[in-house]
Amino acid sequence: MIVIGELINTSREEVEPAVKNRNVDFIQELAKKQEEAGADYIDVNCGTLIKEEVEAMEWLVKTVQEVVDVPLCIDSPDPKALKKGLETCEKRPMINSITAEKERYEEILPLIQEYDAEIVALAMDESGMPEDDQDRINVATKLIDDLVADGVELEDIYLDPIIQPIGTDEEMGEYILAAIDEIITKYEDVHITCGLSNISHGLPKRQLLNQAFVVLAMSRGMDSAIMDPLDEKIMSLTIASDTLLGEDQYCANYIKAAKGDKLVI
Amino acid sequence: MIVIGELINTSREEVEPAVKNRNVDFIQELAKKQEEAGADYIDVNCGTLIKEEVEAMEWLVKTVQEVVDVPLCIDSPDPKALKKGLETCEKRPMINSITAEKERYEEILPLIQEYDAEIVALAMDESGMPEDDQDRINVATKLIDDLVADGVELEDIYLDPIIQPIGTDEEMGEYILAAIDEIITKYEDVHITCGLSNISHGLPKRQLLNQAFVVLAMSRGMDSAIMDPLDEKIMSLTIASDTLLGEDQYCANYIKAAKGDKLVI
Repeated sequence: MIVIGELINTSREEVEPAVKNRNVDFIQELAKKQEEAGADYIDVNCGTLIKEEVEAMEWLVKTVQEVVDVPLCIDSPDPKALKKGLETCEKRPMINSITAEKERYEEILPLIQEYDAEIVALAMDESGMPEDDQDRINVATKLIDDLVADGVELEDIYLDPIIQPIGTDEEMGEYILAAIDEIITKYEDVHITCGLSNISHGLPKRQLLNQAFVVLAMSRGMDSAIMDPLDEKIMSLTIASDTLLGEDQYCANYIKAAKGDKLVI
Repeated sequence: MIVIGELINTSREEVEPAVKNRNVDFIQELAKKQEEAGADYIDVNCGTLIKEEVEAMEWLVKTVQEVVDVPLCIDSPDPKALKKGLETCEKRPMINSITAEKERYEEILPLIQEYDAEIVALAMDESGMPEDDQDRINVATKLIDDLVADGVELEDIYLDPIIQPIGTDEEMGEYILAAIDEIITKYEDVHITCGLSNISHGLPKRQLLNQAFVVLAMSRGMDSAIMDPLDEKIMSLTIASDTLLGEDQYCANYIKAAKGDKLVI
C-alpha cells in the first residue's frame, strides 16, 4: 500500500495558522510523524491561502523536505503554486492533480513533463463529477490514454476514481469498486489511489466506514490512498490486507509490524 | 452478512465442561448473547465428547432452542449426532457439513433431504484439503453440481472454500479470494461462508488478520461467515462493509447500528 500522507493541508484547522505564521516546528513535526507512521509521500497543500499560496508553497516544500526522506506530493488548484512547489523539490515529486478537463489538462501536462513528476489523475472532466462506474471508467480511460500519448508512463499515473459519499447514494461504493476493478484490468501498471475519507462524509462513526472501504478497495486492486497515516487502526488494516493479498513474502512485513508494536487490533 | 455464531463448540476450553455437566445457564447465556450480537444461526458442536456425543447433541439443541429465535446449525463429524440434532430441531436447520468425499457425501445427503436442511458444503474431496484456487473451484463445482442434481436448491448451499493459514503459504489469501470470485460468478445464488479465523492461525494479532480478511472476502462475494459474533470490531466491519457494498438501503442499517451504540471504531 502506497500511503500519501494528507495532514499538511491548510484546510485543516490547526494547519492554516501554522503555515501563515511559518511555524517550522509544527510543520516539520507533522511531516516527520507521518513518515515515521509509514507515509510513502507527504502531500503539501496550502490552497486556502489564496493570495500568498505561491510563497507559502515554496516555504512548505523547503520546510518539509529538510526533515523527511520520502518524496513530496505537491497539491494545489493553482498551476503557479504547483510550479513553485515543483521547482523547490529536491526529490522526484508527485503532482496532485490533473483531470480530463481541457484547461486543467493543458496547464498540468507541461509541469509533469518539465519536472518528470508522478501524477494523481482524477477521473473527472468538463461534465463534472462522475456518477456511476461507467462514467468513471470512460473518463479514466480517456485521461490515461491521453497521458500515455503525451509520454507519461503508466506506472507514474495514480488514477483517482473520485470518491463521493455513500450517504448520498447507496450504490456509490459498488460504482467505485467496479470502476477500480475495470481500470486495473485494463491498465495493469497504473496505480489506483483515492481521497479515502470522502466515502464516509455525513455519516456517524466515519473512521469505521473508511477502514472497511480501504480494505474493500484494496481487494479490487487499489494500491494507494491519500489518507491519515497517524490513524493506527486504518494503517494496521492496510498492512494486514497487503499480507492477505499476497504482497508480503513469508508475512515478514506483518510480523515485523507486530513486533514493532505497530498493529492495533 | 449472514453470521453463523461459532461459540458453542466443545473444542473451546470453557464450553466442554459446561456441556459435560449439562450447565443449562452457561449454554443458554452463550446462545442468547450470540443472537443479541447479531448471529443469524447458532452453531452447536460437541464433537469432542466422542462417546456421549449423540446424547449431548440432543441436550444442546433442546437447551439452545429454548432461548433463541434463530435457527441452529448442527455441526458434527458423526452422522448419528447430526441425525439426533436434526430430529430435535424445531426450526429448519442447517447442517455443518458435507464434503465431496464419497462416504461423507452419501452419509449426509439423506439427512439434508429428510430434514429439508440448509447445508455447509466444504470444498474438499478424497485428495484432502485443496491447495490453490483452481483446486477449490474444481471441487466446489463438482460438489455444487452433485447437490443440485440430488435436489438441493442453490440458495440452500453455503459453500466453504476452506480457509488455510496465510502463515503457511503467502498466496493462500489470493487463492481463496480468487476461488470465491469464480464460484460466485458461476453460481450467483449460492452462499459463500467460511471458518474465518483459520486464516490467521500461527500469526500474531490474529484478530486484525481476521478483520481484514472478512472484508476482503466480502468484496469478492462472500456473504456469510462462521465466526464469533461477540467480537464487536469484526461485526462492526461487516456492517460497514454491507453498507459500502450497496446492501443497505439509505444506509439505514448502518445508522441504526450507530445509534444503538453497536459500532466500534
